[in-house]
Amino acid sequence: MAEERYFVGLDVGGTTMKAAVVNDHGHPQSAPAVMDTRPERGQEAGLETMCETIRRAVAAAKLTANDITAIGVATPGLMDIKAGLILDPPNLKPWKNVPVRDHIKGVFKKPTAYQNDANAAAYGEFWVGAAQEAKSMVLFTLGTGVGGGIIINDVIIEGEHSHGGELGHLRIDTPDRGRICGCGARGCLEAYASATNVVRRAREEMACWRGASKLREYFTANDDVLTARLVFELAIGGDELAWKVVDDTAYYLALGATALIATVDPDMVVFGGGMVAAGERFRSLIDGHVKRLGLPFPTKSVKITIASLGSDAGFIGAAGCARLLVQQKATD
Amino acid sequence: MAEERYFVGLDVGGTTMKAAVVNDHGHPQSAPAVMDTRPERGQEAGLETMCETIRRAVAAAKLTANDITAIGVATPGLMDIKAGLILDPPNLKPWKNVPVRDHIKGVFKKPTAYQNDANAAAYGEFWVGAAQEAKSMVLFTLGTGVGGGIIINDVIIEGEHSHGGELGHLRIDTPDRGRICGCGARGCLEAYASATNVVRRAREEMACWRGASKLREYFTANDDVLTARLVFELAIGGDELAWKVVDDTAYYLALGATALIATVDPDMVVFGGGMVAAGERFRSLIDGHVKRLGLPFPTKSVKITIASLGSDAGFIGAAGCARLLVQQKATD
Repeated sequence: MAEERYFVGLDVGGTTMKAAVVNDHGHPQSAPAVMDTRPERGQEAGLETMCETIRRAVAAAKLTANDITAIGVATPGLMDIKAGLILDPPNLKPWKNVPVRDHIKGVFKKPTAYQNDANAAAYGEFWVGAAQEAKSMVLFTLGTGVGGGIIINDVIIEGEHSHGGELGHLRIDTPDRGRICGCGARGCLEAYASATNVVRRAREEMACWRGASKLREYFTANDDVLTARLVFELAIGGDELAWKVVDDTAYYLALGATALIATVDPDMVVFGGGMVAAGERFRSLIDGHVKRLGLPFPTKSVKITIASLGSDAGFIGAAGCARLLVQQKATD
Repeated sequence: MAEERYFVGLDVGGTTMKAAVVNDHGHPQSAPAVMDTRPERGQEAGLETMCETIRRAVAAAKLTANDITAIGVATPGLMDIKAGLILDPPNLKPWKNVPVRDHIKGVFKKPTAYQNDANAAAYGEFWVGAAQEAKSMVLFTLGTGVGGGIIINDVIIEGEHSHGGELGHLRIDTPDRGRICGCGARGCLEAYASATNVVRRAREEMACWRGASKLREYFTANDDVLTARLVFELAIGGDELAWKVVDDTAYYLALGATALIATVDPDMVVFGGGMVAAGERFRSLIDGHVKRLGLPFPTKSVKITIASLGSDAGFIGAAGCARLLVQQKATD
């Protein structure tokens, strides 16, 4: 009988990094170890914090480094996945060309997988989350920005330049008329459906709304108070104006999903991140728009679901990538 | 030393079907055998014509059935690739639920691969055509409609419902404002960039053009005379109005390409079909729009090219699928 194998998954974000030991079935062996990233302290300190987070995760699982089969690390882009490098992500400034994979591999002497954070989250949902029954899936992650990941038959679509699944920059309106995105272009999905842009659109709707609305009372509130979460809560609470903003968000996301249906034609499209707290009602809005707007034949069968692993998806998926790495090596 | 292997590739279209024997290096062993499809004679006759085209291809290569390792068949959608079935494609009426793969396999007693025709053409270009140096590629095929195929590391993205690479139905304008597509939706790439729609847009431009133009002289010409080919020829010849139509076509195709860059992030995007006779000048127009409109990091490295196999891509790619099939079996 094969012994239980353990993998460490590390998810590095701009604010914190999280790691946990995950077994062969995708179950975390403890609550994640969490440390502040504090990128401003520089990349040497960052690499040491990564190693320390991994050590704490191993300790939290009451294991030692010897028990670990492989390690998976996920970071935000820009990155070079094949080379194992963080390039210069906007939320990890001033890091530049950080050899993450080789450093971790050198310190722990374990096979080390490296992946984009949204791809890792997608793989987590594919492996043991909302899409575990699916053969292929697309994940949209809704947060400050909009990210994504595409998995087809256990293969992560990394892209030739590490930009596979860059779904926030799918264009859902034309370059001359669309909303302006943080990337400088017009019409990107992110310019409509990120948390920041849900709030912006809410403000625009408020400016011309004539009916009664609780949301309308936040007219002069600043962004600390008027958040995407508040808009969603008011919508669920029955506010008509907030509901319009949420329904429009679902519509924009559905446009993103239909582009994936016409290219990848997946089994399942999963939505994850903060807004999905709105749950089934939000899912069902997206589903309705997808069914109306998608290419009929594949759309009638595609499943639209809400992510199930929450913010654990990243480190679970990173651990899953570590597991994939040693499996691939074993069958080579 | 391994003996040379031979594969038959059969490409079934609404008007004709073509087959040839192709060797392990993707070289056709003769000009293709061509027969009329005549779908109106029914699917039994259709299956028999497929077999006869295959037999003629084998004879044309001066080989016998014993020399053939495997067969690949490509047909237009709708289809069920995994099941090996033609469902009910609009240009093969009145065929319905035709068990192509099992029939061919039964008649010739050879491993038989089955694939969508545009996917097969993409695989042909990937294997031995314009994208033979690429690790991943996307093909847009420009004809009466707009089709496509996506290949990543020798894997064809078939889709879970046989609709992978349905690139004509990528939306490049919004569902409320876009041009109406044959599929009933608004904003699909095909509603802009198919041969039919190039002519439609040319007519629209003619209606409000004020300058001198040779194209403008075809104002009352019917569609037999005013073709997409003519528009492209006039553009290459220096006609300003025709050039606008061609440049707009390049712009719409570039929008399609940028959607693939943000999802699949391929090495190369290839354009094939009738319009590419316009060659380097058309390619360079598309390239310029892609560079301007695509997500900067992956776009600066993506190669935009013109297909090199012409109408042979389908049967060469189908033969390539047959080769993939026996390779997969060998390594199972």
